[in-house]
Amino acid sequence: MNLEVLEEISITTPSKIVMLVIDGLGGLPDIKTRKTELETAFTPHLDKLASSGACGLIDPIGPGITPGSGPAHLALFGYDPIKFRIGRGVLEALGVGFELTEGDIAARGNFCTIDENGLITDRRAGRISTEKCAELCSLLSQIKLDGVETFVLPVREHRFMLVLRGEGLNPDLNDTDPQKVGSAPCVAAAESPEAQFTADMVNRFIEESKKILKKHYPANMILLRGFSRLPAIPSMSEIYKLKPVAIARYPMYKGLAKLVGMKVFSVEGDFKEELKVLAECYAEHDFFFIHVKEADSAGEDGDFMRKVKVIEQVDSALPALLALKPDVLVVTGDHSTPALLKGHSWHPVPILICSSWCRHSKATRFSELACALGELGRISALEVMPLAMAHALKLSKFGA
Amino acid sequence: MNLEVLEEISITTPSKIVMLVIDGLGGLPDIKTRKTELETAFTPHLDKLASSGACGLIDPIGPGITPGSGPAHLALFGYDPIKFRIGRGVLEALGVGFELTEGDIAARGNFCTIDENGLITDRRAGRISTEKCAELCSLLSQIKLDGVETFVLPVREHRFMLVLRGEGLNPDLNDTDPQKVGSAPCVAAAESPEAQFTADMVNRFIEESKKILKKHYPANMILLRGFSRLPAIPSMSEIYKLKPVAIARYPMYKGLAKLVGMKVFSVEGDFKEELKVLAECYAEHDFFFIHVKEADSAGEDGDFMRKVKVIEQVDSALPALLALKPDVLVVTGDHSTPALLKGHSWHPVPILICSSWCRHSKATRFSELACALGELGRISALEVMPLAMAHALKLSKFGA
Repeated sequence: MNLEVLEEISITTPSKIVMLVIDGLGGLPDIKTRKTELETAFTPHLDKLASSGACGLIDPIGPGITPGSGPAHLALFGYDPIKFRIGRGVLEALGVGFELTEGDIAARGNFCTIDENGLITDRRAGRISTEKCAELCSLLSQIKLDGVETFVLPVREHRFMLVLRGEGLNPDLNDTDPQKVGSAPCVAAAESPEAQFTADMVNRFIEESKKILKKHYPANMILLRGFSRLPAIPSMSEIYKLKPVAIARYPMYKGLAKLVGMKVFSVEGDFKEELKVLAECYAEHDFFFIHVKEADSAGEDGDFMRKVKVIEQVDSALPALLALKPDVLVVTGDHSTPALLKGHSWHPVPILICSSWCRHSKATRFSELACALGELGRISALEVMPLAMAHALKLSKFGA
Repeated sequence: MNLEVLEEISITTPSKIVMLVIDGLGGLPDIKTRKTELETAFTPHLDKLASSGACGLIDPIGPGITPGSGPAHLALFGYDPIKFRIGRGVLEALGVGFELTEGDIAARGNFCTIDENGLITDRRAGRISTEKCAELCSLLSQIKLDGVETFVLPVREHRFMLVLRGEGLNPDLNDTDPQKVGSAPCVAAAESPEAQFTADMVNRFIEESKKILKKHYPANMILLRGFSRLPAIPSMSEIYKLKPVAIARYPMYKGLAKLVGMKVFSVEGDFKEELKVLAECYAEHDFFFIHVKEADSAGEDGDFMRKVKVIEQVDSALPALLALKPDVLVVTGDHSTPALLKGHSWHPVPILICSSWCRHSKATRFSELACALGELGRISALEVMPLAMAHALKLSKFGA
């Protein structure tokens, strides 16, 4: 649904919506048992919710499209991820918990190796350790540019984040990473006249970096890509008139939530700790995004049984959430991460929505199969927020 | 499907389409029986149609969006209700059966109460009787404006409709209703230069009304909102090459049908009377929209069993319709009106399409549940006309 229409019909009410996102929830069947991770897990609470609520499958971006976590979450919050693109640099900055401000230009960086002729021999500098990366980042942080502040933060192994802050910056630059060995790193060139100053600053930064890194072989050069800045995105409180809260443990998800105007509660510990925070902030807010990362990590590792266990742990902790009696509970994932594929996939994601306003469900389990036959049908992730809002009676009639 | 494509591929054939719209058809399960209104009703004819036709669920506007009757019907006729917005004033005019012509500006009016300082004390003038409203409307009808004709018609209680007719009018005005007591009514201000003349006329009308109403406390002032004119909408005969007919009993639905170029047959009496009119005009036309209002009214009143009865009455009268052997029969609703919610809702609406060209159906009942599992799946109401046209073999191939 388009955001203008949603903004027009959204109203504030005392009802509360909890959106529990089990990252990478959807899976593929194990070859022997023919059951997915979710179908293998013992999930009495989720099953009961599925039998009283409405089930379906969501496509994060569209059938066949495997999403990254950024666009997948944007879609869940109702923002078309094809319209609101989050650049690679911005995503990296969100991922390390860097507080981007409007106008900042972020880039994803790689330490790399160049030979005596300046040609790239390894785009990842032999995957230096994260410790080494941190050490090099603090060296690069000392580079001074006229009128532009720089921030260099380590990500993992050879990866880092670069942010430029200052007046008149513009992200309209090509990548300096040629994406192949045997070539020299590209020069940052402005793709529009407004970006010339930024191109000059970036090239100066690269030159200075090269000097500093000379004696740090194999990490003797840098490559930059995905120059970008925060997308202009209307907040969830503007559109939905909500007081939204994010309860998450990983920086990128907290950053994404901040991007759409959620108040972010950081949690150390596990899902149970997240639920304690939920209970504490429950009275003061009306929308709660709770993020569980571990199912995705297990899927990425190809560890089927670990993913099953994560799902079971979430299920067994659910009574503390249900005790709050949210008016609407949505349980879903941002995308599928089948252990079989060891990565994100395009498969649609199971969803259940519980409220007092559901039709029957024939589901006796919360599973890919039951959801495929569910009342919600197969819908776009963009429909999740309108449905959650509707079930909370927070949308007035469209037209008379 | 976009209208340009439909216009390109639509062809005229002798086949006939009947679209039976049971207003507010979809429901929610009764808490005790766990059956919806439709599932409670004894509907042998509809069930038989469901078992031989194709079933599904339609979203009038989109998942989660509760539609008004205007946009919901537009969608059923294939017009995107987000693109073709019908203003409040126009809808009010359609609702009282006023024949709007191109260029007319319509507004919804309220009689209200103001105190000696001109501040609103009651936005509804104590909900004066419809008779009193009619009396006051005829007084306001005597107001003369230079070059602009005015029409003032009572709606119900404190509500009325104002139409301005003349050269150079433009609806780009703010509401004069501040939507709260304690404020003075707003002045109508032009939101674009083209609307300045209209603003002047409206303000003159309000001044004159105030003088006339002085001695009619509590209805001593008026508030106007939703200034609008007929949307420019291509007719169903242009797009679908049909000779379409509407058989309806309530002014708003007749007005909507006229808006999209249907020939309108007014009917007094019940659904059986509508079917008599259908039989009479059947030979001369090829598309028939039949509207049954009472299911919605029962739902709005929260009267579950009355809604059940309306559905049963429709079912028992169906043989007269089936005797005409329409090539395509569509049975659906414009939106859901669950008795449990006492109002329109966002829940998708059961639909069945019967023709000689349906795949199997597993349905043994026409119900929300059977439709959720039906061959059509969950589709937008905008797809109903293309499907009906296709089943009538009235759409040629797209591309070679």
